[in-house]
Amino acid sequence: VNQQNRQILLAERPDGPLELRHFRTATAEVGEPGPGQVLCRTVLLSIDPANRAWMQGRTYRSQIASDEVMAGFTLCEVLAGDLPAGTVVACEAGWQEYAILPTTDVQPVTVRGPLTDQLGALGITGLTAYFGLIEVGQPRPGDTVVVSAAAGATGHVVGQLAHLAGCRVVGIAGSADKTRVLTERLGFDAAVSHRSPTLRKDLKAACPGGVDVYFDNVGGPVLEATLSLMNARGRVVCCGAVSQYDTSTPAPGPRGVPGYLVTKRLRMEGILVSDFHDRWPVAEERLAGWLATGQLIALQDVIDGLDNAPMALIGLLKGDNVGKRMVRVGPDPH
Amino acid sequence: VNQQNRQILLAERPDGPLELRHFRTATAEVGEPGPGQVLCRTVLLSIDPANRAWMQGRTYRSQIASDEVMAGFTLCEVLAGDLPAGTVVACEAGWQEYAILPTTDVQPVTVRGPLTDQLGALGITGLTAYFGLIEVGQPRPGDTVVVSAAAGATGHVVGQLAHLAGCRVVGIAGSADKTRVLTERLGFDAAVSHRSPTLRKDLKAACPGGVDVYFDNVGGPVLEATLSLMNARGRVVCCGAVSQYDTSTPAPGPRGVPGYLVTKRLRMEGILVSDFHDRWPVAEERLAGWLATGQLIALQDVIDGLDNAPMALIGLLKGDNVGKRMVRVGPDPH
Repeated sequence: VNQQNRQILLAERPDGPLELRHFRTATAEVGEPGPGQVLCRTVLLSIDPANRAWMQGRTYRSQIASDEVMAGFTLCEVLAGDLPAGTVVACEAGWQEYAILPTTDVQPVTVRGPLTDQLGALGITGLTAYFGLIEVGQPRPGDTVVVSAAAGATGHVVGQLAHLAGCRVVGIAGSADKTRVLTERLGFDAAVSHRSPTLRKDLKAACPGGVDVYFDNVGGPVLEATLSLMNARGRVVCCGAVSQYDTSTPAPGPRGVPGYLVTKRLRMEGILVSDFHDRWPVAEERLAGWLATGQLIALQDVIDGLDNAPMALIGLLKGDNVGKRMVRVGPDPH
Repeated sequence: VNQQNRQILLAERPDGPLELRHFRTATAEVGEPGPGQVLCRTVLLSIDPANRAWMQGRTYRSQIASDEVMAGFTLCEVLAGDLPAGTVVACEAGWQEYAILPTTDVQPVTVRGPLTDQLGALGITGLTAYFGLIEVGQPRPGDTVVVSAAAGATGHVVGQLAHLAGCRVVGIAGSADKTRVLTERLGFDAAVSHRSPTLRKDLKAACPGGVDVYFDNVGGPVLEATLSLMNARGRVVCCGAVSQYDTSTPAPGPRGVPGYLVTKRLRMEGILVSDFHDRWPVAEERLAGWLATGQLIALQDVIDGLDNAPMALIGLLKGDNVGKRMVRVGPDPH
């Protein structure tokens, strides 16, 4: 392949809020795949809060180094190598138009509709919502389920799944536009703004029976407020801490840890979707079924052009997105 | 019964560290039990960190009011009423020599040896150690188990049970005397001081394979340090937060909540022994068996005289006790 490969590198590790200057563009030769490799063309690039956390230090993966291609989850089309050309694969191609990857690092995808669904409700964030809520949160009909970043990629799926499970669903989001989408389009019973100076009071009013399951995407003060409203033996699904990602000086933890955990016998537990890898196909099948019947609505926030990826991530960290944010890097192969 | 009943009241709710001036003594008539009641004579009064937490606000029980008899767990002898005289019962008689209680609020005890064992290793703290470690911590042979307040009433039992379960056991305690007891008498593999300026480093050296189960009695900075050393899918048993009880302005929560929970998929869960009430007899039987064979050593810290109860609690909160602290209020009936 003689084409040029446009790339976006992490120029410098941010020491505070992420800015455009922390990135730079580069161009490289595409090259040819060797044995045991595939050449991939990036179709969709997933923009996730975790991208920012990876810059800060070691998480469940190694830290992103400066002057390397920015890491990111992608859906790609195979152009050449060990798999048939045209195969759609999920992989970590990063922020670039082309990537040569070990065949063992790419996962062929059963395409069930538009690739945007595949990256969102049927992808990592949809599966995280499914396993986090069902397996860790263990909602029972009649429970009150609260989810933060509720208009985000994972949150909006969590709320709808909780609704399907017979729960009262309350979303926490950052704007009136978002809370309106939750209650008017997605069937949430109530929604409150995390920017409200009376968040705890608002949330208490929205949860007259207390909170049985809290799906936490944000950490920080929202976690602190919700902990104080949990019912005895409640479950807190720790999925993310986006309020703490865009800084190198994270806040102290929430007051009430471990106090509330002891007195109310709460369970707080982290979810990482890869731990459930062997059961992904079952969950995908179910999520696809609910999408097909309209019981699950996938909100997407698609931005065109690789060059807009830095802006897309910076905006995501400020809470600009509604639904699953992604960057369209190249045309859909179908 | 024509005797006088000596009592210790909470004179004033403390607004900082507990002091003698927060208590006062009083004398009341003993009175006669009515229908559905028993008259109890206090033999042993349990001195627990939770006594202090109850003064601060509502926990799993209502807050202790000023000018009421100080609340506390006791072993008593029934003198009259609905149960045969001489029956030993576990109940909340509080800090007084005699109490008239509803028969439904007292629990006859199968006396298996000295009542001091019954109040400690076979009582609430022993059962808390058992259910907290086994049911919530779920230790597996080869796991590294860390316990804080390790020379305390619950902690010293936790460590020995973890040892019985085939784990590497590391205790955190507050003095060289205590850490020596843990390693030399109770079979702990290592012990470190929470007062060390290099606690995290000391603990890391004592846990070369990381930490699989942390039984937390203290919260605060010790919890923060241990969280950072947990292995993926580790379990934190939240049993108490004694570092935060003797104040009305608790510290912020530990950094790393929820960050570590997410990246390492930790589970933090509270334990309250009453949730396991229907299985207490099984656990008591096992604990009694291990006591009988010497596989479990019960450390006791018995102080004589009801009037010394305030001092006993104040000292406990400073970490003076080694093992289960209790006050002997009256003679053992046997």
